[in-house]
Amino acid sequence: MNNFLFQNPTKLIFGKGQIARLAKEIPTDKKILLTFGGGSVKQNGVYDQVKDALKNHNCMEFWGIEPNPTVETLRKAIALGKENQIDFLVAVGGGSVSDGTKLISVAIWNENDPWDIVTNPKKIGKSVPMATVLTLPATGSEMNKNSVISNTATAEKIPFAAVYPTFSILDPETTFSLPKFQVAVGIADTLLHVMEQYLTTTGQSPLMDRWAEGILQTLVEITPKIQNNQHDYEQMSNFMLCATMALNGFISMGVSSDWATHRIAHEITALHNTTHGQSLALIFSSLMRVMAHQKGAKIVQYGERVWNITTGSTDEKIEKTIAKTDEFFRSLGLATKLSELNIGQDSIDKIVARFKANGTKLGENENITFDVVKQILELAK
Amino acid sequence: MNNFLFQNPTKLIFGKGQIARLAKEIPTDKKILLTFGGGSVKQNGVYDQVKDALKNHNCMEFWGIEPNPTVETLRKAIALGKENQIDFLVAVGGGSVSDGTKLISVAIWNENDPWDIVTNPKKIGKSVPMATVLTLPATGSEMNKNSVISNTATAEKIPFAAVYPTFSILDPETTFSLPKFQVAVGIADTLLHVMEQYLTTTGQSPLMDRWAEGILQTLVEITPKIQNNQHDYEQMSNFMLCATMALNGFISMGVSSDWATHRIAHEITALHNTTHGQSLALIFSSLMRVMAHQKGAKIVQYGERVWNITTGSTDEKIEKTIAKTDEFFRSLGLATKLSELNIGQDSIDKIVARFKANGTKLGENENITFDVVKQILELAK
Repeated sequence: MNNFLFQNPTKLIFGKGQIARLAKEIPTDKKILLTFGGGSVKQNGVYDQVKDALKNHNCMEFWGIEPNPTVETLRKAIALGKENQIDFLVAVGGGSVSDGTKLISVAIWNENDPWDIVTNPKKIGKSVPMATVLTLPATGSEMNKNSVISNTATAEKIPFAAVYPTFSILDPETTFSLPKFQVAVGIADTLLHVMEQYLTTTGQSPLMDRWAEGILQTLVEITPKIQNNQHDYEQMSNFMLCATMALNGFISMGVSSDWATHRIAHEITALHNTTHGQSLALIFSSLMRVMAHQKGAKIVQYGERVWNITTGSTDEKIEKTIAKTDEFFRSLGLATKLSELNIGQDSIDKIVARFKANGTKLGENENITFDVVKQILELAK
Repeated sequence: MNNFLFQNPTKLIFGKGQIARLAKEIPTDKKILLTFGGGSVKQNGVYDQVKDALKNHNCMEFWGIEPNPTVETLRKAIALGKENQIDFLVAVGGGSVSDGTKLISVAIWNENDPWDIVTNPKKIGKSVPMATVLTLPATGSEMNKNSVISNTATAEKIPFAAVYPTFSILDPETTFSLPKFQVAVGIADTLLHVMEQYLTTTGQSPLMDRWAEGILQTLVEITPKIQNNQHDYEQMSNFMLCATMALNGFISMGVSSDWATHRIAHEITALHNTTHGQSLALIFSSLMRVMAHQKGAKIVQYGERVWNITTGSTDEKIEKTIAKTDEFFRSLGLATKLSELNIGQDSIDKIVARFKANGTKLGENENITFDVVKQILELAK
């Protein structure tokens, strides 16, 4: 096991009716900026619950943080925050609203342009406390310090370590009305968060392996039930808990991690605006195939413990496991090949050129260089 | 899944050579009280590492916090802390030193007698920040707010919620020289911490179930390896991580818990000064047998997933699973019957009388009343 530091200060407030706790968690002397995406929270009653909880607080609203939140939009929210001396932020929505609000949090009391902060997080100083009311389980942003911000002008999408939410409220009932596609990409995203921290080498930590597999097994078990009835409180609770636990540091203590699938998928999203979870599903199987020489033993362990694949040669087990994973993505209604979404050779070439220019080395052994990225993308065509 | 709140602020600093980080984690203007048990940390080099790390800090020392720490001993440390205006505490040792130091932490800036605080934690006000340098994986005290304090005068042993350590340093190398018996009771204690949060009913949270089972599976896997070579860094790391993760709230989100075995075992320890992990091993199998009518389905799930018991009727599976658990305790060199430690009818009668007098109702359904405790103890004879 590698040496590690672990700390996660976020308070998790989980369950039915918990949005009402906002009133208790935020001092009444705070000047709050509520941040939102599109209007779905007005349809599903979440907006009303938030406003009702904070009826004795001083609140402003900022609307329009988009999926793959852009620095262009967020500059407007930051200006509003500076102008009104906002000292508490509440992100109401999914991971994009949370990620965007993290940039607002670190930019309000900062003189630098927000894109400078994203590209050089050393410029982060004091941050405005932020909380989230989560409505879409997927990114884990509600219980980590990560944020991913896009820049429309440069067609870039960059992850950076921003700030932990002070608290996050997770009421599974808020997920009942999500579009099926959003649930599907949320499940794919959760699966890949686990995979990036798990699918490296065997034997680093038997406990972390089992906790990662525990999330994967749960996802596999609950997915058909969720597809059958998205109003099943127990199953949506399980999904919501899995999504948060997949990326809050709990399964990565003392083990190496990969993140190549995410990095390549970010490029696809930056070029084509494909939903993040969908982009991941396009890449992951090809990455497993190309990196099987290195990840083979862990793929076999994953196949055995999650998919019950116990017979055949090692190569056969690896192939069956990859096929099962692809089948799972397809059961979610997601594409697993670039061609299905009309992503062509020109995009592959652009992405490879960008990794070449940056000298990027991805993966747990930093051996996924631009030419390996090319192999992965060619196989994903 | 039940509604829940989760927050755990403790920073975990895990791995080889990490005791040196004490210097970085504690501001030099703090007046530190180092607390210790007996002298074992002087033999295994931990004391020297701590002193070396804090050579530029202002430190005092308090020695002699005993296993099952007593309020009588701790009153002396608290007096020392008050007198010298101590504003940082570092517990160096196992769970008893940590538990005792938690009482010191909440008592230094408090006018009440420490036993009043233990028996009425509402009297807790401001606490002195505390950290731990853990040398014995077992209680989980390094990453939770729990403390258990004994009162010699009244022969009581009482758990209370005190304070989270600010940080805890876990260097697996500190465990290499532990007596075999200490390792054995540490494993038993870890197993029971998981069991108290797990062995209730099935289907409350598939993820929490799998995380609990992940710890149990890991314990079962590593125990013979540890018994074979206690200097195996990887296995002692696994043990140390399991012990901390078993009682830091990570496996109890949204699920009910039991704690009856602990409560009964505390009484045995209070009367006979048996080591905590040993007391647990005396009770647990009898509790499973007496409560099988209620816990049967979960015992079967535990047997299947941890011990691979998949054949036979439900009753046979339950019996095999209980037998396997007892066998595991015996493989650790622990007694599983009261008579083995000459604990007789008089003690049983005393314990039952105490539960009867207090009207205590234990277990996840609060149906383990004094007469059920009597059944459990009679079966454990």
